[in-house]
Amino acid sequence: MSVAERLHELGLVLPQPVVLPPSVVTAFSWVRVSGSRVLVSGHGAQNPDGSPAGPFGRVPDEVPLEQAQRSARLAALSVMASVQRALGDLDRVSAWVMVSGFVNSEPGYAQTTAVLNAFSEVVVDVFGPVIGDHARTAIGVVALPLNLPVVVAAELQVSAN
Amino acid sequence: MSVAERLHELGLVLPQPVVLPPSVVTAFSWVRVSGSRVLVSGHGAQNPDGSPAGPFGRVPDEVPLEQAQRSARLAALSVMASVQRALGDLDRVSAWVMVSGFVNSEPGYAQTTAVLNAFSEVVVDVFGPVIGDHARTAIGVVALPLNLPVVVAAELQVSAN
Amino acid sequence: MSVAERLHELGLVLPQPVVLPPSVVTAFSWVRVSGSRVLVSGHGAQNPDGSPAGPFGRVPDEVPLEQAQRSARLAALSVMASVQRALGDLDRVSAWVMVSGFVNSEPGYAQTTAVLNAFSEVVVDVFGPVIGDHARTAIGVVALPLNLPVVVAAELQVSAN
Repeated sequence: MSVAERLHELGLVLPQPVVLPPSVVTAFSWVRVSGSRVLVSGHGAQNPDGSPAGPFGRVPDEVPLEQAQRSARLAALSVMASVQRALGDLDRVSAWVMVSGFVNSEPGYAQTTAVLNAFSEVVVDVFGPVIGDHARTAIGVVALPLNLPVVVAAELQVSAN
Repeated sequence: MSVAERLHELGLVLPQPVVLPPSVVTAFSWVRVSGSRVLVSGHGAQNPDGSPAGPFGRVPDEVPLEQAQRSARLAALSVMASVQRALGDLDRVSAWVMVSGFVNSEPGYAQTTAVLNAFSEVVVDVFGPVIGDHARTAIGVVALPLNLPVVVAAELQVSAN
Repeated sequence: MSVAERLHELGLVLPQPVVLPPSVVTAFSWVRVSGSRVLVSGHGAQNPDGSPAGPFGRVPDEVPLEQAQRSARLAALSVMASVQRALGDLDRVSAWVMVSGFVNSEPGYAQTTAVLNAFSEVVVDVFGPVIGDHARTAIGVVALPLNLPVVVAAELQVSAN
């Protein structure tokens, strides 16, 4: 089954390209392909039209765990959409390698693992346990772009052309 | 001298596999091998039986520098134990490449370098200055899984089989 | 045009090797070369003589945005200087691949993207939009070495010798 078919089966829709407020300039690329490596910038939740998706703020006092997990799931779709645009075809992905997760956290919030699991589970649901397998960090930070609750960067691998 | 012999000589014992509280799910792998690259998830201090090792909390107000350094040393053993399980043999490691260190910090705590040096020194003690050499980051974050004081992720290289 | 010529044209001068206060030990390498990969440790602003360059502190309450951007620009020169010493020649760089930016931030500070753009813009100015292109993260952290406002790690690629 192709990744596109699997997404369809799960009822998941990849968002449009990232659309940011006019005041926000991004002097970098969302995805950098270097040989068989695919480096992915920090992505947050998007609405289907590409705009940033709320809620915004700190976990869990402003954004409770369940909403942070939803944000992490949407960040996974945002990453997949950017990778698809960079590669042309998500079936070229041969491995998710590393996921770096950042949670906008209250001091001492010990559930960053639970937040990021929502990201990892979407990856494994869509790509399967072999290609989707990855190492991961899940840390609590004091500030994130756009005041997003969750931002995730990643590295993937593609098979040789 | 093999890595196992060197660990024995230094009196260091690698912990058992990570054992987490039943409430903590980990939807990722502790180590992801991709070709000659070995990506290692964030690891914290473990007791020899695999359980998380305290103290827990923020550096330096809840966990003073010396105890944070001990936690960093134990995190190094935890990383080595996971890599050994993934590779079968630590002598296959040809290079430590990058170490990403996270310290659960009070705002403005400027000694994260001193905390992570304890990790780096164990690596170089065990693997020597050539294989053990690595680039590093050492940042202060507001929250870490299990409220650990120190979590460290890494990337290593193995020689071709 | 060589990178050295381009730096000269832009009026940019790379700093001397990092000189830290005697109390600060660094048990790691500023740059780790592994095959064609160049892993760069977290670097902050330096004065031309190699000493750490202020201002120090938190963005934006202690260090306003414009000064944080200046610090990010100096961090870019610091990274380039370390890479030059490691490689002998910056013209060997074939790609900037990934930039990991850390801003010493007030809670909820949403302008980390604007701070790190100053880093990315210097990279692209000096190396051009093809070699200089990179993925990036820009997160707000609670503490950085030396209480620097901005620290940046990176991964670059070199062409085969």
